[in-house]
Amino acid sequence: MHFVKWQALGNDFVFVNGFKEKLEEVTKHTKEICDRHFGIGADGIIFVLPSDKADLKMRIFNSDGSEAEMCGNGIRAFAKWAHELGLVKEKRISVETGAGILYPEILDNGMVRVDMGCPHLDAKEIPAEGFGEGPIINQTLANEKNGKSYQVTCVSMGNPHCVIFVDDAEAVPVTEEGPNLETDPHFPKKTNVEFVEQLSPNHLRMRVWERGAGVTLACGTGTCATVAAAILNGRVSGGADVTLDGGQLHIEWDGNPKDHIFMTGPAEKVFEGDYLL
Amino acid sequence: MHFVKWQALGNDFVFVNGFKEKLEEVTKHTKEICDRHFGIGADGIIFVLPSDKADLKMRIFNSDGSEAEMCGNGIRAFAKWAHELGLVKEKRISVETGAGILYPEILDNGMVRVDMGCPHLDAKEIPAEGFGEGPIINQTLANEKNGKSYQVTCVSMGNPHCVIFVDDAEAVPVTEEGPNLETDPHFPKKTNVEFVEQLSPNHLRMRVWERGAGVTLACGTGTCATVAAAILNGRVSGGADVTLDGGQLHIEWDGNPKDHIFMTGPAEKVFEGDYLL
Repeated sequence: MHFVKWQALGNDFVFVNGFKEKLEEVTKHTKEICDRHFGIGADGIIFVLPSDKADLKMRIFNSDGSEAEMCGNGIRAFAKWAHELGLVKEKRISVETGAGILYPEILDNGMVRVDMGCPHLDAKEIPAEGFGEGPIINQTLANEKNGKSYQVTCVSMGNPHCVIFVDDAEAVPVTEEGPNLETDPHFPKKTNVEFVEQLSPNHLRMRVWERGAGVTLACGTGTCATVAAAILNGRVSGGADVTLDGGQLHIEWDGNPKDHIFMTGPAEKVFEGDYLL
Repeated sequence: MHFVKWQALGNDFVFVNGFKEKLEEVTKHTKEICDRHFGIGADGIIFVLPSDKADLKMRIFNSDGSEAEMCGNGIRAFAKWAHELGLVKEKRISVETGAGILYPEILDNGMVRVDMGCPHLDAKEIPAEGFGEGPIINQTLANEKNGKSYQVTCVSMGNPHCVIFVDDAEAVPVTEEGPNLETDPHFPKKTNVEFVEQLSPNHLRMRVWERGAGVTLACGTGTCATVAAAILNGRVSGGADVTLDGGQLHIEWDGNPKDHIFMTGPAEKVFEGDYLL
C-alpha cells in the first residue's frame, strides 16, 4: 500500500489514495497501521475518495479503528495533498465529510484556511447547567472536587468547550485540573477545557485538556472556542494567533454569533512510503 | 533520504544505508526523524557502514541524539536488512559494534540468533552490595522504601539485572515496584528489574523495568539475565522461551559461567520510505 504521512500541528495521519487502494483492505488493518511501534504510527488514516456532492470526499479512521466525522487538522493536510495529487486545481475546494461539506482554501503562503462554522453560545447548546439561560461569559464555576473557583466562558463548536483565562498558562497543572473540570456536574456531556494566557492584544497561549483524550498537541475546535471566548470577554477583536503545544493557528471571527469562524494553519508532508499490508 | 523501518519485538528503528547516505547529514536531524508526531517516529536510527574488522559496521543513534554501543533487538533487524540489501551473503555475519564484533546468524525460519556473551555473576561485577561475595542466587533483599522483601537473583549482561520470580507476573505493579528496586541502595549503579513467572518447564513470562527507561516492550539483555537466573535457581535447564510484552525470545545457556548465552528472536520490515531531510 502506497501512503503519504502528513502532520498538522503534530496531529499526524497516514493518507491513502482511495482512487487506487481499496478502503476495506486498508481499514481492516487500521490498528496495526497506526501502531507507533509495530506499524507506520499515526493518529489516524485519511482517505481521499470520489464524491457526488463535492470535489472530493474525505473519510477519517481513528487509530482505534472507529470512524471520525471530521478533523480540523486533518482537512488542512487533505487540501494540500489533494492538490499535490492533482485531483483538484482550484485553491478553494469543496470536501464532503461526516460533518457536511467543508471548504478548505490553500493560501499563497501555503497555509490552509477552513470555515469552522458558527460558535454556539446558549447554555442549552453547550450543554452546561446551573448557570442560567443564554451565554456563559466569565461566570464563576465552583468545582466540587478540588474546592477551587474558576471564571469560565463556555462555547460549543459542535463539541463543548470551557475556556478559562489565566495569568500563566505554563504554571497550570493541566493533568490535574483538566479531568476535574471535564467531569464537573455543570457539564452533562462533559467538556473540553482550555487554559488561556493573553500574551499580547492579538496573541494567546492555550493549553488544552481534550474530553476523552487528555492533553493533546493541538485542538482545532478548542482554538476556535478560545478566540471566540476572548472576543466575547472584550480581550481580543476580530481574531488572534493562538500558540498551542504543537504549533500556531490563526482564528478569525467578527463576534456575531450568526457568522462563521475561520481557522488558518499549517500542514506538512513528512514522508512517503510503501507499507506491506 | 531513503529509509527502511524495521521492528524487533516492538523496538523500532529507521535503517539508513550509510553506503549511500551521509551519516552526518542524517544524524543532525535524529531527534526530528525519531519524533513520533512530527517525524518518521522510531526508538532510534541504525546505519550500515563499511568496516575494516568485520563484514559490516553498525552504528545506532538513540531518539535523543546520543549514540548507543549495541542493541540486541536492533542487531537482529540489522542482519536481515543487510541480507536484503545484498551487502552480505553468508547466513552468519560479523558486525562491528560499539560493544565489539558480534555474530548474528539468520536461521532457516527467519529468526536471528545472536551471541550475547557470558553472564557475569560475581556481586562486584553486577555491581551489588550487602549480599556478601560471589553469586547472588535467590537471596533476600529488604527494600527500605516500601518495606517489602524480595527473593532476588542478580546477573550482569554488561548491565545489571535483578531477577525476581513471582507467582503471577501480570499482578505485579511494575511501575511502583520497578523504580523502588532500580534505586535500591544495594545497587550502586542502579539496576534493571525483571519480574518473572514460570508458565511451564521451559516457558517464562517476563515483565521488565529498564534502568533509566521504565517499562519497555522488550529488553534483550534482561531476557538473557532472566533465563540465566532461572537456570541458576534450577527452574529451567538448557534454555527457555520468554514471553515479553512485545513478543517472544528464545534463550540458550548451558549454565557454565564461562560459556556464552545465545538469544534467538524475530525482526520484521514494516515499511520503506523517502523522508524529506
